[in-house]
Amino acid sequence: MTDTSAAAPPLALTMGEPAGIGGEVAVKAWQALAASGPAFFLLDDPARIAALAGPGIRIAEIAAPAEATALFGSALPVLPVPLAVPVQPGRPDPANAAAVIRSITMAVQLTQAGQASAVVTNPIQKATLYEAGFPHPGHTEFLGALVGSTAEPVMMLASPMLRVVPVSIHVSLRTAIETLTSDLIVERSLIAHRALCTDFGIANPRLAVAGLNPHAGEGGAMGVEDDMIVAPAIRTLREAGVAASGPYPPDTMFTPRARAGYDAAICMYHDQALIPLKTIDMDGGVNVTLGLPVVRTSPDHGTALDIAGKGSADQGSLIAALRLAAELAARRASAAQH
Amino acid sequence: MTDTSAAAPPLALTMGEPAGIGGEVAVKAWQALAASGPAFFLLDDPARIAALAGPGIRIAEIAAPAEATALFGSALPVLPVPLAVPVQPGRPDPANAAAVIRSITMAVQLTQAGQASAVVTNPIQKATLYEAGFPHPGHTEFLGALVGSTAEPVMMLASPMLRVVPVSIHVSLRTAIETLTSDLIVERSLIAHRALCTDFGIANPRLAVAGLNPHAGEGGAMGVEDDMIVAPAIRTLREAGVAASGPYPPDTMFTPRARAGYDAAICMYHDQALIPLKTIDMDGGVNVTLGLPVVRTSPDHGTALDIAGKGSADQGSLIAALRLAAELAARRASAAQH
Repeated sequence: MTDTSAAAPPLALTMGEPAGIGGEVAVKAWQALAASGPAFFLLDDPARIAALAGPGIRIAEIAAPAEATALFGSALPVLPVPLAVPVQPGRPDPANAAAVIRSITMAVQLTQAGQASAVVTNPIQKATLYEAGFPHPGHTEFLGALVGSTAEPVMMLASPMLRVVPVSIHVSLRTAIETLTSDLIVERSLIAHRALCTDFGIANPRLAVAGLNPHAGEGGAMGVEDDMIVAPAIRTLREAGVAASGPYPPDTMFTPRARAGYDAAICMYHDQALIPLKTIDMDGGVNVTLGLPVVRTSPDHGTALDIAGKGSADQGSLIAALRLAAELAARRASAAQH
Repeated sequence: MTDTSAAAPPLALTMGEPAGIGGEVAVKAWQALAASGPAFFLLDDPARIAALAGPGIRIAEIAAPAEATALFGSALPVLPVPLAVPVQPGRPDPANAAAVIRSITMAVQLTQAGQASAVVTNPIQKATLYEAGFPHPGHTEFLGALVGSTAEPVMMLASPMLRVVPVSIHVSLRTAIETLTSDLIVERSLIAHRALCTDFGIANPRLAVAGLNPHAGEGGAMGVEDDMIVAPAIRTLREAGVAASGPYPPDTMFTPRARAGYDAAICMYHDQALIPLKTIDMDGGVNVTLGLPVVRTSPDHGTALDIAGKGSADQGSLIAALRLAAELAARRASAAQH
């Protein structure tokens, strides 16, 4: 195995909603990582970031990602993405939606071109983007469209204590049930399995598949989906050589003892995955998009408009997202060379 | 306020599934509580419990609950409920289902008659009871039928860190959604509110009401139930003077910071309530049935057939259930006197 870390391009960090805490946590993350790396550059308005950072922190406007690596130890590198109107903390303006979207598009293109090693996204304000005509339910779906994925990308939430993969994301609970099929569970599980092997470096990843219903249906007494949909998917996965097990009663599969038995939990709906993850580790969780040709992570929090501009935002999740992106990108690059 | 604890009758502890861990944890709980109380008696077969306890532990067969209090410091009091066939640990036999059911019926009757102060139930094996013709989905529903409740009883899971109340219990997730109404949320919340006041001694309990959908529907983008069903229920509760708030995004309402803001979470389905509770506190949770004329608690675990008869079962949750039952019964008795 070759050490590719020295040669790795910097990470591309998007603006996110500029009225949120993205700029603030980016500056704080740079302060924390300047000495150690991983190096990243921010796609944002340099003057705005300089004003936000204050006089003690150097901001370096760059013309290309390659400049970021050498600069990173002494300044926060910013690749300019101009804003249409001045930003008021806590008050998102649809007039800036085009810039928010452009910073995501640029980050993906630079990563696909090999100038950045991975995409790390700051949180967006979906309602504001919807107002401006943004047609995607969320970040993850937009990224899938940008890279022309045929399969919908898969979301993983990863913390040091738990990795979860919901088979559906931003749909109503009713729709999550109505659209649940064995094929969907198998497809999402195979994408998760491949990512755990390639990007996470786990040789034979163990997948724990949750049931849909209370007590995993208790033999049909509380719903038939566990026997009719989830169990057949697990049989298919096992026949394909994947160490999958379940369906497990959802309420007891996230205890410390249960978690020790698997590498990722495949969950049947958004909150079945996100409730245990955020309950255990509100600030350390990282959102990882699986099944894309680019590595993408993001912090596991929202725009936090209520505390924007106050200097009190916590940078922990963004730092975890940057570190994990660098780690996954390095493993993927290394796997591609062998 | 009068101290009623000295005069309080003992707690009635049911047999539960005799092939499970109920007898073992009852003996261990007696060892832990013999000196301190609260006093309880077990409704079970005295010879079987004596054999299970071994030679170092005294079992006292009693003819009436009143004998238990004086005996409790030196022996585990057992009120006889004969079994039909010998018990094989780990192998439930429908032939003993009648005895399992009888121990529950007796516990409720003795409590209603004032001879016991509360009912504490060991876990039952539902499939075995169903085979023997038991027509109730679970313990809680059976207790409601026994006492002739018109409203369905309400389940609360309580741990020192979190109290949760699901508005539906043992139904499929699909049915939980289809049967969710504003009236149901209001009815369950009012029962929870009353119990928090009377039994838990909280003056103005704060109820946090969860949304049904991811992000509580995000303004209708992911389901209409949060705006159409949950929000109106909260308005009705507030108009009735209840400190209810929400609907909250389910994934962020169980973090330590969020939990500090409420006394109980009203949850829209079984696993939304039980996943965070069991993830945080697998062994310390107590199941409390609200809205019954008798106080009833039970440990928050199952029959654990796989470890029955091995001596390794943990009595922590049963001890918590016994202590909480005594506490709730004392408060209710005290409130009834004033």
